[in-house]
Amino acid sequence: MTLSITGYDAAGVWTQNLSKSEQLTGWEKPAGITWIQAENIDKPEEVNRMAEIFGIHPLTVEDILDHTHQRPKVEEFENYLFVTFKAVNFETDSGLSHISMIITGDMVLTFQDKGGNDFETIKRRIMNKAGRHRRMGADYLAYTIIDTVVDEYFISIDTFGSEIEVFEDRALTEKDETFIKDIQGVKRKLLKMRRAVWPLRESIFMLMRLESNLLNNDLDPFLKDLYDHVIQAAETVDTYRELIAGIMEINMTVVSNRLNQVMKVLTIISTIFIPLTFIVGVYGMNFTFMPELDYAPAYFIVWGVMFCIAIGMIIFFKRRKWI
Amino acid sequence: MTLSITGYDAAGVWTQNLSKSEQLTGWEKPAGITWIQAENIDKPEEVNRMAEIFGIHPLTVEDILDHTHQRPKVEEFENYLFVTFKAVNFETDSGLSHISMIITGDMVLTFQDKGGNDFETIKRRIMNKAGRHRRMGADYLAYTIIDTVVDEYFISIDTFGSEIEVFEDRALTEKDETFIKDIQGVKRKLLKMRRAVWPLRESIFMLMRLESNLLNNDLDPFLKDLYDHVIQAAETVDTYRELIAGIMEINMTVVSNRLNQVMKVLTIISTIFIPLTFIVGVYGMNFTFMPELDYAPAYFIVWGVMFCIAIGMIIFFKRRKWI
Amino acid sequence: MTLSITGYDAAGVWTQNLSKSEQLTGWEKPAGITWIQAENIDKPEEVNRMAEIFGIHPLTVEDILDHTHQRPKVEEFENYLFVTFKAVNFETDSGLSHISMIITGDMVLTFQDKGGNDFETIKRRIMNKAGRHRRMGADYLAYTIIDTVVDEYFISIDTFGSEIEVFEDRALTEKDETFIKDIQGVKRKLLKMRRAVWPLRESIFMLMRLESNLLNNDLDPFLKDLYDHVIQAAETVDTYRELIAGIMEINMTVVSNRLNQVMKVLTIISTIFIPLTFIVGVYGMNFTFMPELDYAPAYFIVWGVMFCIAIGMIIFFKRRKWI
Amino acid sequence: MTLSITGYDAAGVWTQNLSKSEQLTGWEKPAGITWIQAENIDKPEEVNRMAEIFGIHPLTVEDILDHTHQRPKVEEFENYLFVTFKAVNFETDSGLSHISMIITGDMVLTFQDKGGNDFETIKRRIMNKAGRHRRMGADYLAYTIIDTVVDEYFISIDTFGSEIEVFEDRALTEKDETFIKDIQGVKRKLLKMRRAVWPLRESIFMLMRLESNLLNNDLDPFLKDLYDHVIQAAETVDTYRELIAGIMEINMTVVSNRLNQVMKVLTIISTIFIPLTFIVGVYGMNFTFMPELDYAPAYFIVWGVMFCIAIGMIIFFKRRKWI
Amino acid sequence: MTLSITGYDAAGVWTQNLSKSEQLTGWEKPAGITWIQAENIDKPEEVNRMAEIFGIHPLTVEDILDHTHQRPKVEEFENYLFVTFKAVNFETDSGLSHISMIITGDMVLTFQDKGGNDFETIKRRIMNKAGRHRRMGADYLAYTIIDTVVDEYFISIDTFGSEIEVFEDRALTEKDETFIKDIQGVKRKLLKMRRAVWPLRESIFMLMRLESNLLNNDLDPFLKDLYDHVIQAAETVDTYRELIAGIMEINMTVVSNRLNQVMKVLTIISTIFIPLTFIVGVYGMNFTFMPELDYAPAYFIVWGVMFCIAIGMIIFFKRRKWI
Repeated sequence: MTLSITGYDAAGVWTQNLSKSEQLTGWEKPAGITWIQAENIDKPEEVNRMAEIFGIHPLTVEDILDHTHQRPKVEEFENYLFVTFKAVNFETDSGLSHISMIITGDMVLTFQDKGGNDFETIKRRIMNKAGRHRRMGADYLAYTIIDTVVDEYFISIDTFGSEIEVFEDRALTEKDETFIKDIQGVKRKLLKMRRAVWPLRESIFMLMRLESNLLNNDLDPFLKDLYDHVIQAAETVDTYRELIAGIMEINMTVVSNRLNQVMKVLTIISTIFIPLTFIVGVYGMNFTFMPELDYAPAYFIVWGVMFCIAIGMIIFFKRRKWI
Repeated sequence: MTLSITGYDAAGVWTQNLSKSEQLTGWEKPAGITWIQAENIDKPEEVNRMAEIFGIHPLTVEDILDHTHQRPKVEEFENYLFVTFKAVNFETDSGLSHISMIITGDMVLTFQDKGGNDFETIKRRIMNKAGRHRRMGADYLAYTIIDTVVDEYFISIDTFGSEIEVFEDRALTEKDETFIKDIQGVKRKLLKMRRAVWPLRESIFMLMRLESNLLNNDLDPFLKDLYDHVIQAAETVDTYRELIAGIMEINMTVVSNRLNQVMKVLTIISTIFIPLTFIVGVYGMNFTFMPELDYAPAYFIVWGVMFCIAIGMIIFFKRRKWI
Repeated sequence: MTLSITGYDAAGVWTQNLSKSEQLTGWEKPAGITWIQAENIDKPEEVNRMAEIFGIHPLTVEDILDHTHQRPKVEEFENYLFVTFKAVNFETDSGLSHISMIITGDMVLTFQDKGGNDFETIKRRIMNKAGRHRRMGADYLAYTIIDTVVDEYFISIDTFGSEIEVFEDRALTEKDETFIKDIQGVKRKLLKMRRAVWPLRESIFMLMRLESNLLNNDLDPFLKDLYDHVIQAAETVDTYRELIAGIMEINMTVVSNRLNQVMKVLTIISTIFIPLTFIVGVYGMNFTFMPELDYAPAYFIVWGVMFCIAIGMIIFFKRRKWI
Repeated sequence: MTLSITGYDAAGVWTQNLSKSEQLTGWEKPAGITWIQAENIDKPEEVNRMAEIFGIHPLTVEDILDHTHQRPKVEEFENYLFVTFKAVNFETDSGLSHISMIITGDMVLTFQDKGGNDFETIKRRIMNKAGRHRRMGADYLAYTIIDTVVDEYFISIDTFGSEIEVFEDRALTEKDETFIKDIQGVKRKLLKMRRAVWPLRESIFMLMRLESNLLNNDLDPFLKDLYDHVIQAAETVDTYRELIAGIMEINMTVVSNRLNQVMKVLTIISTIFIPLTFIVGVYGMNFTFMPELDYAPAYFIVWGVMFCIAIGMIIFFKRRKWI
Repeated sequence: MTLSITGYDAAGVWTQNLSKSEQLTGWEKPAGITWIQAENIDKPEEVNRMAEIFGIHPLTVEDILDHTHQRPKVEEFENYLFVTFKAVNFETDSGLSHISMIITGDMVLTFQDKGGNDFETIKRRIMNKAGRHRRMGADYLAYTIIDTVVDEYFISIDTFGSEIEVFEDRALTEKDETFIKDIQGVKRKLLKMRRAVWPLRESIFMLMRLESNLLNNDLDPFLKDLYDHVIQAAETVDTYRELIAGIMEINMTVVSNRLNQVMKVLTIISTIFIPLTFIVGVYGMNFTFMPELDYAPAYFIVWGVMFCIAIGMIIFFKRRKWI
């Protein structure tokens, strides 16, 4: 676990990095907005110690630590707001990483189960003296953190969008199992994403409706905008799921049409030769009395007849649009 | 970006075209209703300058510029109403163009990410001295703009309707992949359309419920009517999606029935000749002692037997309704 | 357009037929309840003239005229209630006809885009001196008009019910494309019907909730009953859609089972003869030294062997339940 | 129609059977709770006469008589509560029978469109002096009637449950159309049942919410319990529908797998013999100069080669897991 | 049935085991929180006797005993809260066991239709003097019981998760009916689980909203957390159902692709040999005058031609990507 602390007010910014939560004991919160960011949380005891220092409810600690069974949500406690949500990053193993956030009047604590410098841009914007962060409260900082994660959703969504376009072309040419496996892979990722996005939508809706003095009124248009973005993300994910269903349908039709085409041509070849083989069989019979056999041009007549039959069948098949 | 300004009151109408937003600096709004129409917005700085001039919130500016990730919505700000929605035009690339609208007490600003003179009819109706525009406020102008876009939805919907009728006929005759690709194309357009229409429905519902002094009471029946039209559009899109599903089902059944029919006929031909080929094979054997071979009419008897077998099988297949 | 006017009060009934709306100018509404019925409305100017005479809002006129894009709804205006809905009649072209109704305190105006004497029974009931019409208001007349149309829904629904029963039998015997086309036709009609019935349900719900002095309290149980009937119709339509899905499933299974059965039998015939043809081929070879050829009973032994092979294969296939 | 009247109070019970509603004219309701049960109602005039005697609204009479188009519902009238619902009995024709119930302060009237002694157990419980009926009001009697019908739902549901278990086994062995017909039959029955159960759920919910002085407060836990049972029934029906979908999927897979297996084996037999038939055909050619023909052991060598080819192909097919 | 009683207060803990409910007669509840746990309830009379002792409503007794038709729910009675829910354990027969719980001010009664020491951990936590149980009321004990059961849900869910991962691999290799049967088995279990989890979600929601003095305010965050876990479980179950649908789709595609591949190869082998067999048949004819027959190298030329045809066909098939 790594801890980094960023403090700022209208006048200035200061940062500090700690390697252990122990170093926080006896730490005195300076004036201004403070953001304590814990990354790669893996040891429960470290989180427990921080909970003790900052007065966090044991249930919140459980929610911070249980990254697999935790669903995006907002919870209001006596002295803080607890928001938890998922960041998506489909390069990693499970695709989702778990972020928990505690918002008090002048402090934001974030806990990430994985690392990554996703939040560097926020820090740069805090540095900017004329930026909005310096004028607004901790709630605005919390908003920008969620907003950054939601913006990353759109990066993933746009990646899916390009992948789907590629699949649309592949659907018309590929016919083996790789295709179906690849497309099911994307489908599964979209399913995961859906489970991250839809509950976040509810959570932000709840934040908007919350009558908490931890959230200032001037945050309202920002939350509305954020809500709007999350709905957009959620709906795009659902649209992509429908598109994928359509692509799979096209692929199945294409594959089965091609195969049927091949089988039909093969069957037609057999069907043309089987009657001919019968005819040559007839004149291979060893009957003593077979008048045709001794008729000199009979051999050539048989060839002619067989040729006509073959041509006739081909024309018949063509007329019926079978070939 | 092109800017055109239309002003009117009960007495008269005046228009002005600007090529740059700079020219708006220091511009003084005349009395009466003013409509500033910005088309082909592509440079963020132009929109930003206009935002400064007219006191538009930075989040609104973001929503105006982000045409791909923006979803139809209504937002109420202190001094204006912000409405954003999609125009459909399936001749263009993505099929959708993005229109943002700002409504103040006596001014309407529209931002379109693409051009097009869709709104010429509105301007003509404004010119008409006895028309309703001249008697009503900026809110009525805003209503007619949305109404014009919704009327265009029905043009697209009617086009889809005719296409679907054509597909209904094609479903019974075509059997290659073009059909499935074409119909999936329409399906994808309907999906896009759906995403433009359904959120607009919500937005207009919200406009109807809004307690804003920017919207007069005499606009109520017009909004109700508009709401009704949007629902009608949305439901027709959904009905079309169901019809397309039905057409695809018919086509798949037709294609597979035809192919099966062909395969069955081919197999029947083979099945008739294979036993006959066996019989002629029998009399092609070279055994020294085969009594039939020396019996003079045997050859013709064999022909007769084979003929009977063939006819018998055909009758059998006919009786069983296999042919 | 034809116009027929029916007036009645507790004392008597009078009727009048007009061929043009012009004749209504200067017309003085007599005391009692009046029902003005306009059929086959096709000329907008006629409707406009009537709107002027009776003080109908321009939006209502639009809704009356736009029969294709209009959805069932209820709208409350200052001096009247506007109700619009669809009558079903699957003999006609589009299956639906559009009925608009204006209800004032003592007058009902109906506009039908098609003709038909669907409302004769209502008129007969008005004639009946002891009937409920003569004791109740214009709202009851309006209710009986909608109720008559809803009763006609059940006629269509019962027709669909009988058609579906026929389809259930056909599903087990038919195997060509006519069946799938016929059943998709019924499916499409049900879809149309659904779009007429579901919004009417909402509309009647709205009528029930409406706090309008145009609707008397003693109409309440009648509206509830009507609401109940419409739900029943809507649910039956949905049930029929499910039944049709089931029937199509049965038909597809039956068709594919039959075809597979045929193909299997044909393949079994080939499979029995191909090894036999191989055997006779063997003894058709021209090798100088083939000991069997000179062995006198060999020919009959070969026949015996082939017979045994054929019987053996048939028994094998029977045992495995392939035949 | 048969009429049976049961009256009881804390002191005693009396019963009476009437064959005609006429006999009710002038009938004087005794003190205590009275239950008038009309079975096999078929003559509208009988019901009309009863309506007159007991002051029932004409709409209620319509609902009592129209057994096919009537949906479970609750309606509150001035002097009585009207509840109508469906009993299920899949031995009968349509599977559903229609029960209407009128509840007044001290009387319950039930109308059944079919007969059957479903309610004998209730009567026995009324006889029981220490039973709850004797202590509670007419509303409790009405509750026990609905509860009895709902308990019968579970009998049908348990029957379906056993049938579904049988289908699960049959799905793995049967492959003809009987199976699909049988299972669609159960599906159709479940659909019917669903339409009886879901609206009853709503109706009982409405009864629970009703502020009627015809329902005592001490009935509340009983209604809650009833509501709970109906939800349970409704959800079980839906679960069974899902199970049936799964069973049909298994059956289709099993059938198609078996058939494919058969076709593959048959095709493999053909594929092995066709090259061998070609070889024997080669040595059946009549060329003057064919060196192999005169080579004494050639015949046996050909047999050997053919044997090797056959074995080789079988091994090849086995290796590829085709057999 | 076995009965075990656990009592505790801040000072100490005591336990007692009874083999019969009779022994409870005259039993005097000691001070502090008491938990009476009845396992393997099978005899209705035992439950009835307990109901009498503790003043439980007859309907609650019915709900406790009817373990198959009972659905998770919460009911508020005058003197107690009744909560019933399902524990999952897919080792047992039906997979679900039924737990009923009665919560009074200082007592919790649990009734389990099966045994099992699932609640040992709770008892250990009660023993712990510094634990939260000793400081909180009976409602907290009830919460931990439900929480323990919900935690067991996640054990089952994680098992399903691993099974699904195995199925994902099997889907690409297996092709017989075992696979479809196994996966349908998991699907059926998930369906069962779904029916246990979703209504529990409602019940806990109801508990959260309940204005009961049996539930202290300090339980609120715990209930919220529990609610959150149940939603998480419910959503995971639904996601798994979707994943299984995807896996079945992959498997069906894989199986049908493989089979088609095999059939195509077999058909190609036939198609190559059938024309060759025709050629050798030609030269097996017995015509007196066939010039080729006497041409010495003809035999080898025919071999060459046949070789070329075979190679040509293979190249043709390869070019068309049929092989």
